[in-house]
Amino acid sequence: MSEPDKKEITPEEAPENGKGIRNSGNASETGNRKTKGDFDLAAVYVSDAQYNRNIFFDTTPQAIRLYLLYNHWGLQILVYAFILVDLALAIFEDPAVVPLPIWVTSVIELVCLAAFTARLVHYAKVIPRERFWKDPKNICIFAIILLSLVDMIIYGALKASGFYAVRWSRVLRPLLLVNITEGRQLRRAFRSIRNALPQILYVFLLFMFSVLMFSLMALKLFGKRGLKTIEGRPYFTNYLEIVFDLYVLVTTANSPDIMMPAYNFSVYFAVFFITYILINTYIFMSVFLAVVYNNYKKYLKEEVRKLVRAKRHKMVRAFGVLQERKGEGEPVVSQACWNQLVRLVQPDISNAHRELLWSVSDDNNKGCIGKVAFVQLADLLNIQVIMMKSRPHPLKTWLPSLYLSSPSRLVCRMVQHKAFMYTYDLIILVNAVFIGLDEEDPLIANVEWAFLVLYLLEILLKLYSFEPRAFFSRHQFWNWFDTIIVITALIAMIINSALKLCYTSRQILDIVFILRILRLIRVVDNIKRFRAIINTLIKIGPTILTFGQLIVVVYYIFAMVGMELFKGKIRFFEANSTDPDKAFCGNPLLKNSVFAKHNYCKNNFNNVVSSFILLLELTVVNQCGFTAVTHISARMFFVLFHIVVVIIIINIFIAFVLEAFFVEYTVDQSNLQSSLEKKIEELELGLSACFLPGYKTVDGLLQRMFEADLDPEDFADDEDFDPNNPSNLNFPNPNFDSV
Amino acid sequence: MSEPDKKEITPEEAPENGKGIRNSGNASETGNRKTKGDFDLAAVYVSDAQYNRNIFFDTTPQAIRLYLLYNHWGLQILVYAFILVDLALAIFEDPAVVPLPIWVTSVIELVCLAAFTARLVHYAKVIPRERFWKDPKNICIFAIILLSLVDMIIYGALKASGFYAVRWSRVLRPLLLVNITEGRQLRRAFRSIRNALPQILYVFLLFMFSVLMFSLMALKLFGKRGLKTIEGRPYFTNYLEIVFDLYVLVTTANSPDIMMPAYNFSVYFAVFFITYILINTYIFMSVFLAVVYNNYKKYLKEEVRKLVRAKRHKMVRAFGVLQERKGEGEPVVSQACWNQLVRLVQPDISNAHRELLWSVSDDNNKGCIGKVAFVQLADLLNIQVIMMKSRPHPLKTWLPSLYLSSPSRLVCRMVQHKAFMYTYDLIILVNAVFIGLDEEDPLIANVEWAFLVLYLLEILLKLYSFEPRAFFSRHQFWNWFDTIIVITALIAMIINSALKLCYTSRQILDIVFILRILRLIRVVDNIKRFRAIINTLIKIGPTILTFGQLIVVVYYIFAMVGMELFKGKIRFFEANSTDPDKAFCGNPLLKNSVFAKHNYCKNNFNNVVSSFILLLELTVVNQCGFTAVTHISARMFFVLFHIVVVIIIINIFIAFVLEAFFVEYTVDQSNLQSSLEKKIEELELGLSACFLPGYKTVDGLLQRMFEADLDPEDFADDEDFDPNNPSNLNFPNPNFDSV
Repeated sequence: MSEPDKKEITPEEAPENGKGIRNSGNASETGNRKTKGDFDLAAVYVSDAQYNRNIFFDTTPQAIRLYLLYNHWGLQILVYAFILVDLALAIFEDPAVVPLPIWVTSVIELVCLAAFTARLVHYAKVIPRERFWKDPKNICIFAIILLSLVDMIIYGALKASGFYAVRWSRVLRPLLLVNITEGRQLRRAFRSIRNALPQILYVFLLFMFSVLMFSLMALKLFGKRGLKTIEGRPYFTNYLEIVFDLYVLVTTANSPDIMMPAYNFSVYFAVFFITYILINTYIFMSVFLAVVYNNYKKYLKEEVRKLVRAKRHKMVRAFGVLQERKGEGEPVVSQACWNQLVRLVQPDISNAHRELLWSVSDDNNKGCIGKVAFVQLADLLNIQVIMMKSRPHPLKTWLPSLYLSSPSRLVCRMVQHKAFMYTYDLIILVNAVFIGLDEEDPLIANVEWAFLVLYLLEILLKLYSFEPRAFFSRHQFWNWFDTIIVITALIAMIINSALKLCYTSRQILDIVFILRILRLIRVVDNIKRFRAIINTLIKIGPTILTFGQLIVVVYYIFAMVGMELFKGKIRFFEANSTDPDKAFCGNPLLKNSVFAKHNYCKNNFNNVVSSFILLLELTVVNQCGFTAVTHISARMFFVLFHIVVVIIIINIFIAFVLEAFFVEYTVDQSNLQSSLEKKIEELELGLSACFLPGYKTVDGLLQRMFEADLDPEDFADDEDFDPNNPSNLNFPNPNFDSV
Repeated sequence: MSEPDKKEITPEEAPENGKGIRNSGNASETGNRKTKGDFDLAAVYVSDAQYNRNIFFDTTPQAIRLYLLYNHWGLQILVYAFILVDLALAIFEDPAVVPLPIWVTSVIELVCLAAFTARLVHYAKVIPRERFWKDPKNICIFAIILLSLVDMIIYGALKASGFYAVRWSRVLRPLLLVNITEGRQLRRAFRSIRNALPQILYVFLLFMFSVLMFSLMALKLFGKRGLKTIEGRPYFTNYLEIVFDLYVLVTTANSPDIMMPAYNFSVYFAVFFITYILINTYIFMSVFLAVVYNNYKKYLKEEVRKLVRAKRHKMVRAFGVLQERKGEGEPVVSQACWNQLVRLVQPDISNAHRELLWSVSDDNNKGCIGKVAFVQLADLLNIQVIMMKSRPHPLKTWLPSLYLSSPSRLVCRMVQHKAFMYTYDLIILVNAVFIGLDEEDPLIANVEWAFLVLYLLEILLKLYSFEPRAFFSRHQFWNWFDTIIVITALIAMIINSALKLCYTSRQILDIVFILRILRLIRVVDNIKRFRAIINTLIKIGPTILTFGQLIVVVYYIFAMVGMELFKGKIRFFEANSTDPDKAFCGNPLLKNSVFAKHNYCKNNFNNVVSSFILLLELTVVNQCGFTAVTHISARMFFVLFHIVVVIIIINIFIAFVLEAFFVEYTVDQSNLQSSLEKKIEELELGLSACFLPGYKTVDGLLQRMFEADLDPEDFADDEDFDPNNPSNLNFPNPNFDSV
């Protein structure tokens, strides 16, 4: 359990900061030469730098207002909501999970398309016209909207006249995720993949050459021996089928089945398969990982480098807007100006946090900062600082005599003691054993109530001994987790008990069980080593979301194509069905196949949900038994899927996890983070600044990951900048002089 | 095709080198103060440094002679041969592939043990007695020999009196590979694994916690629903079985089978399995790779650092033996001494090669070298330099008029033209198509002869236009490959044709086919990009051999244990057998099991060969269906195997391939290699020094891999050493002063 640090001095009490806060009151007087428009413009630059937006907007006051509206979080969420609805339409369109009439889905799609058009028009108003049509992502969105409309009309017309029609434009839908302005993470990932492709291609060609050679050998070695597979088909007689089988062997899906007929014939033939697996599964797959890792990293690093440069550029522009000259010296920005700017950029920032950032920037208390210190602002704003005022416990204020009495103090000491934690760890473990026992025994059901009471007691005791607002502050993940789980479990158990009087609800019971088991997870957080691993995993969480989007885009496209190719080929029959077709999934081609025998009938492309689940199964193990039901060329679909998802995307995912762990193991904190921490200690601020695991933006993690590898010139400013020696405030980066 | 570079000046003609060679003749005169024993001692130090042997031998002349004998390649090969025989005994011992009487295997084993004892005694004579008993590897070998003898006696006695006996000491045999003095690569690998274990353990515990939690959830969600697996057994009702099934799901072996009953019941249950696979298969397996990679690398780096330090230490000792003072200056080693030393260390070194190494060391032609330059010698000797004298073609000497005639010149130009290569690439591709066709067609059989003639013609033409000794020099891998394949194919085809008159030999035909197909590989070498990838793979080849030994040790131990546990539980019946037991592999417990249905009966532990093949299958996909035939606790065997082989060793293998590729992508050449190349250019030596892919020792690759990461002090000498400015020949490394 990580408890909030407690310090006695609150920021309001600290004398150094009181001055700053008073200062900020008369910002309009010292910064009176700057107009509201100037501040708006500077704020937009800083905000763009902070979130790495690279949009060349018009700088007229009207365009800036429109641009601010464009970047409003509400509109961004709305866009994602419309995309989600558009993608979710696949659930209701033929082949549907929940069939809806065609006019309903069409109307919803039209509304979505209208929303995308509106967003595009809004964007067109923000940026110069000539830039708008030069940007491929705008053209892409425009084309997607247009093609979707055309497809809807053709599909409607064909359906109305009773012809066969395909909604081919559905493949384009996930591309919206990539091409909207907010999809820059995803675009960057795709760009890096595209750039890494040539290198991957060479290894892939070599790998395919190896597979083709082995297939030829297999054909010559086994083809004439008259062996049979367990399904009774001739073994290794058709070259293309051998190539496919051996390709699948690389994915380990058909091991050892594919080897058994040859191995049963002679033990020497095992040598062939062992060599094959060594070369193609182990060596080539590792080489794929190495090449994907290396190239993806290389291009991503290049992208991050450009990003950092663009960020500096924007910050220098903001500086240019707000700068003022004091006599002969370098241009500076006054504290008042800076305060107004920060409040514009981040309206919800606390005074103490702002003061802290200022004192990091203006290390020598000069009341103004130069270009170098100003440029840091975007990165400073991205460091998550939890400002925590250590307030007295409310009970101390309300009932001081009771709360400060010796029994009350004893309780507090007890709760804060390590033994309290260990006791509850033990209770959790005992609980785990009881959960494992049969819950229909009334004794055990009652014991579960006892555990629930114990957990509730724990939370109440903690709330009694710790300050409740600190206990429930935003970054106390495990406290929130505990409380929510315990209270939900309480509610679910009460509902369940109430219902049990009439009947047993399986769904409620399922929820109760899951909640009970989730409660056990807390044990992990109490072990330091485990917490370190989990924190790293949480840190890479946001980036895994980018991979999630990448996977959704690829899966969606494959699901749409797969549904058109394979829908209805395989049918699933409920367990209690007596249909004779059930034995072969409703397709006579699957009679006596392993696919039908293993009861895989629900692995089909009959609707978008089962398609997604099937694609996930294919990602794990490329079993593609049901290519039997279509033309042999359909196998290309599965091979392509394997190449795109397993060889490229999963490898990038692994590479990313590797890199993130290496960064955790080697890099400690960024320069800015440590200077921020130093400052907090120096100022003895009454706040514990927690650098939460995770950055506000994914780019923050990326920038830190490649920090060590970036060109010195990109970070020259940070490295040259010595807070104790402000004389070397030069700008070696030529980029900045051009402004 | 990489053709030998051709330069006109041969080393004999180069004036600078002529001097050197003449100098080396009177080495005994200038270095007359050193005795033969000194040179022997220095040579032993250098040789130890070159091969990273860390043996504290006695420095008496007699001990040195014994030590030289101990390191003789013949004795080393003999030791490996005896270990191989000892390991191979498993083929003949019960359960045997080829049964031999117990007294035969016992006698062979006794001979092997005697050989190991002799080697150990030899070693004891070489090093000081107190050191001998402090070294755990000596004690280990001693214990293995002793325990093997005890086991043989007990086993013999028990067998003779008709009791059941187990040859438990066979598990110890592969440990010999680790503990012999030559097994230092393997020991280093095991040491790095052992050091990385604690970190791996924490992740493994977290992973197991996750598996246990999910299993508990699965028990609660599915246990009471009365679902059945396709084998008709109750689905997810026993907690331990769920844990095992879900563990196997991580290896993807039972995907999607394990999910199907729940998925068929309700589509929502797929969410459970998807979450499980995401967390445990993708995230945890990546984290395992990251942790294994990072820790293994860290400890290996530490080992290499120690190695480099020890190497310097030994070279400084050698320097100390041979040094002489010239007046007031630093101690130096004269060229004559150095020459004698190098000839002792590497008797087969060519004069030109030695001269080259000297000129790299003595960059300023002073006739003697200091400590820093001397220390380089071990690394210089490890760089493979191919000395190639460009000699005229023998035909030019024998038949100059014919060979220099214009038609002959035209042929040479033609063969050396790119078009010749492309023509043969095309021929190979056409050949590939013909191989794919049915070889029983007499036309195609005859075409194959035509291709063979074309390939022979190619080799003859190349021998005509290129110098034959250069064509067949040691590093011309593809020329050798081509020639051997073509000639073997020719012989095999002739034998086959001769035999065909009586009968068709399938074995010969198989060889012919494989040779034909192997010939096609040559196409790859002609494509530059492919060659780069293949060269990297060849470079890491020797290290992969270390992994091979690691795998053999682990496999052998698991095979021995597995044979004791599972031998005879499953029987394999030949295809034409009519035994009714065939349907269930001779074990009624397997009736109607998927294992028997898939005809997996040959996947058993009935002898050492099938055990190894089965273990390989388990490495690829952990299918362990036949745990059904024994007690459920036998599953521990398979889980343990998976943890050791897949989670640890395979991940280390992948990490090594990754690292080697990154080194290829980023590092170009070591400092020494480039200074050697520079020297060759400077001296305009008439030899093309090829830095062959691959180092003479695995340590060379390791050292280069971690060169960038090593502490500066370890390489301070190399980096400070500026050949153009010999004034800074200082030794910042305190290690050297202690000598």
